[in-house]
Amino acid sequence: MAEFDLIARIRERSRHAGIDDGVVLGIGDDAALLQVPAGHELVVTADTLNDGVHFPHATAPADVGWKALAVNLSDLAAMGARPAWCTLSLSLPGDDPAWLDAFLDGFLELASIHRIALVGGDTTRGPRSIAVTALGVVEAGRALRRDHARVGDDIWVTGTLGDAAAALALGGHLPWPEAAGGGVPGADAGNTADPAGSAFLAERLARPRPGVAAGRQLPGLAHACVDISDGLLADLGHVCACSGTGAQVDVDALPASVALRTLLEPRASCASPPLAAARRECMRAFQATGGDDYELCFTASPSRRDAVAAALGGIGVDATRIGRIVATPGVHALTADAAPWQAPHRGYVHFG
Amino acid sequence: MAEFDLIARIRERSRHAGIDDGVVLGIGDDAALLQVPAGHELVVTADTLNDGVHFPHATAPADVGWKALAVNLSDLAAMGARPAWCTLSLSLPGDDPAWLDAFLDGFLELASIHRIALVGGDTTRGPRSIAVTALGVVEAGRALRRDHARVGDDIWVTGTLGDAAAALALGGHLPWPEAAGGGVPGADAGNTADPAGSAFLAERLARPRPGVAAGRQLPGLAHACVDISDGLLADLGHVCACSGTGAQVDVDALPASVALRTLLEPRASCASPPLAAARRECMRAFQATGGDDYELCFTASPSRRDAVAAALGGIGVDATRIGRIVATPGVHALTADAAPWQAPHRGYVHFG
Repeated sequence: MAEFDLIARIRERSRHAGIDDGVVLGIGDDAALLQVPAGHELVVTADTLNDGVHFPHATAPADVGWKALAVNLSDLAAMGARPAWCTLSLSLPGDDPAWLDAFLDGFLELASIHRIALVGGDTTRGPRSIAVTALGVVEAGRALRRDHARVGDDIWVTGTLGDAAAALALGGHLPWPEAAGGGVPGADAGNTADPAGSAFLAERLARPRPGVAAGRQLPGLAHACVDISDGLLADLGHVCACSGTGAQVDVDALPASVALRTLLEPRASCASPPLAAARRECMRAFQATGGDDYELCFTASPSRRDAVAAALGGIGVDATRIGRIVATPGVHALTADAAPWQAPHRGYVHFG
Repeated sequence: MAEFDLIARIRERSRHAGIDDGVVLGIGDDAALLQVPAGHELVVTADTLNDGVHFPHATAPADVGWKALAVNLSDLAAMGARPAWCTLSLSLPGDDPAWLDAFLDGFLELASIHRIALVGGDTTRGPRSIAVTALGVVEAGRALRRDHARVGDDIWVTGTLGDAAAALALGGHLPWPEAAGGGVPGADAGNTADPAGSAFLAERLARPRPGVAAGRQLPGLAHACVDISDGLLADLGHVCACSGTGAQVDVDALPASVALRTLLEPRASCASPPLAAARRECMRAFQATGGDDYELCFTASPSRRDAVAAALGGIGVDATRIGRIVATPGVHALTADAAPWQAPHRGYVHFG
């Protein structure tokens, strides 16, 4: 399958998706022509996934396609932008139309949800790699930035944290420790798996749902915003460094899914104090430092607590206050009993 | 060198370049914020270079950086756009700050010439691969497209053709057959090598100079335009397919550099008819089917011949009429004696 056949296939499937807002000229010329709405700024981000680095080689191609777009949409979400267009640069080692079609299934499924049009890119021969550039629009002057946090702000996160890190650690191989029932507080709206099962965590890792709707509620409410792709403390560190502030975070107040709690919360069946402590530490590490969550972390004035809760609650997104912005530089993590908490070394998160 | 160090290095060097037209927020947030000028459309293209596929592993990193941007700028040129911003997704196998710095030397040198700002991207671990997305702007409704060629149009090309294919075939290993002097008709304006020497051809391959200035002269003059990256006949085929036309091309009228003519034109020292014929065929193949030229091919009404020559001549760009758009589908190549010319198989272009 030559490059032109691949491009023709991508073009045909992309056209079939029928998304063409602002597209003057799509795939097929030297470049695409796009119309940014008047009074709006253009928002641009680029993220790449490499085989064996960002996903295991055996990952289902539809999941690779979904995630390659999701990580970029999450960056647009963190700016408060509306997704509009994207390009896809796809390197593939050989002719594999079945892989490409399945990849496009996932990519275009998510594109359709967020009405983002695939308008260009290229296909090349090489080790499997997916480079996406996503373009969005936001009303001029209304974008969310990292550098506008203010001392005294609340720190909020959307959804739940630590699920992806737990799924990565489970690796799809460990048996699920025990079944659990119960409600679904904070469950990912689009996640169709049993909210208390390991499949829920696996789907959080494989098919992250970018917080586009949440991000669009936040201009005018939030002061600073970032997506949690590198882990909460690391990404919050970026906000503080850019804003010239520090942050205090309660690591035991971080929102956890039913599935994560089922997996790691101390419980009767493992009541020995050392085991309970190990589980708690593991959970803290997953939640505070595990990457790949793609939730939003934002800061807002305490006077806007009700407005934030109403705006996000109105679209079915849970948001949790987890700390506050302080003047002392650095990110200070504290446990429920106000003791400083030290993030473990990276290797720690591989538990067994 | 971790990802953040790499990004910090790229950010620092990019800032130093001092290009910030329309950049509200550059590298360092989840995404960049950009201001498209009123009354303009956004032009977007993405092209990737992979190590060992698009350039030999030993290629000077500064040349890789230059070319990775050049191939994208050439696409913007073919749309008649003004380059504005770009993203860079860089996969590197390991820590090699010296390679990165040299790569940025070439990338940012060309970026500076065309005043295109590097506003985002990412660095990942993986086989060496460079994915660039370039953004430009063009007055609304004025972009050059592939699908607007009209029967009766002249077909033009800028600059000279076949140099890159010859350099690729020479591979930097073959000795230069003989020295030659003379004028520099059609020589690439920025190419600093001896216009009759093999280094001239090598530089045409390693550091193509995108026809941005030429492209910006053509809206209102040209009907259709494409960049010659896949080879003249192939790219002209795209124009014809998109426009519902055919084309007739005189392969012996294609503009050749002094260096290419020195290399391949039949001359006294090899006057035997079979050798002369082989040289002529080789030259035709390089010029008509060799890729990587990054010149522009465009069509325009015969009534605009003087206007085209004046517009391009005014900025020091040579343009040559090489055929015309016809109603019969397909690209019909003819020799000077009006015989049909058949493009050789791809392997043919490796002469020795």
